[in-house]
Amino acid sequence: MDTGALHKISYGLYVIGARKGQKFNAQIANTVIQVSSVPPRISVCLNKDILTHDFIYDSQAFTVSILAQDTPLDFIGRFGFKSGRETDKLKGINYKIGQTGAPIVLDNALAYLEAEVISEADAGTHTIFLAEVVEAETLMDGEQITYAYYQQVKGGRTPKSAPSYIEKRREDTKGWQNMNVLSAAMSMIPR
Amino acid sequence: MDTGALHKISYGLYVIGARKGQKFNAQIANTVIQVSSVPPRISVCLNKDILTHDFIYDSQAFTVSILAQDTPLDFIGRFGFKSGRETDKLKGINYKIGQTGAPIVLDNALAYLEAEVISEADAGTHTIFLAEVVEAETLMDGEQITYAYYQQVKGGRTPKSAPSYIEKRREDTKGWQNMNVLSAAMSMIPR
Repeated sequence: MDTGALHKISYGLYVIGARKGQKFNAQIANTVIQVSSVPPRISVCLNKDILTHDFIYDSQAFTVSILAQDTPLDFIGRFGFKSGRETDKLKGINYKIGQTGAPIVLDNALAYLEAEVISEADAGTHTIFLAEVVEAETLMDGEQITYAYYQQVKGGRTPKSAPSYIEKRREDTKGWQNMNVLSAAMSMIPR
Repeated sequence: MDTGALHKISYGLYVIGARKGQKFNAQIANTVIQVSSVPPRISVCLNKDILTHDFIYDSQAFTVSILAQDTPLDFIGRFGFKSGRETDKLKGINYKIGQTGAPIVLDNALAYLEAEVISEADAGTHTIFLAEVVEAETLMDGEQITYAYYQQVKGGRTPKSAPSYIEKRREDTKGWQNMNVLSAAMSMIPR
């Protein structure tokens, strides 16, 4: 099987916000889709090991910030390659608390969605959260960033916990520079 | 709620192939994602009313042809705006029968995937099919087409049965030309 074929699937990049009690967390994901129009529903697929998965499972709600094309790489890295278990990822970031109680990241966001979970589909290492959109707002004009742009133009990499992370078995796999070719699809993140 | 925010979600464009008994059908969809890496799993979200949904539900398998950026608009229209109930969409098209028995459309495809359904998540008007990838092949190099490219550059439109079709309530809604602004997300198609 040529798993490289999977890398041709296209995605955007989003910050997913969630809450558990008084704790907030947010992480990068690429697996957001609109599922239906009436009512407006979306889904996101997340790794079961990550903190945001735990928070969404607990509070049954999440937010989606749709990132602009010019989002800095270190902003993506902050939400994509660090764990909320070890650091407060929202420290110094502009966000607001939405009607679901979950944090909405505003920096670099073209628009955001707030959603309440309807059901979860168990997908093995990952869960697909199906959710109804309860609030949505456009914040600014501009092109959204795609995962392909992040990889090709910005040279971004993919974390090991991503759904489609594939270890590259060549000598040049070390370091940041080459990690961007490891995988094309990520529901990114880590922990 | 500003449903326009939903239009900022990014997608690719795919031909989904499926079989029911000796009948084949294929349709355009934008809602394919990779769900997990080990094992390789994908999902696709389809309208319950369409014929391909019925075929996948019956045979529990489907194929995904990942379309190239230069895919002609009439090719997309053939699979996106016509129903397999009324026409043989595969007539004159290059395809092959995969190991799942479902047809794999080869024209304009950069790569294809074959998948066997594991479970279905009921999403109201739509179903999310979660499936294990059993075969994958890259056919040619090139950029994949995105839904944004289809809309902005090619001026493509969105069918009414798409998950995020929104009727535009302005006078200039008539005709093909303006249909491309009706919606940004489609699991496209029709019937």
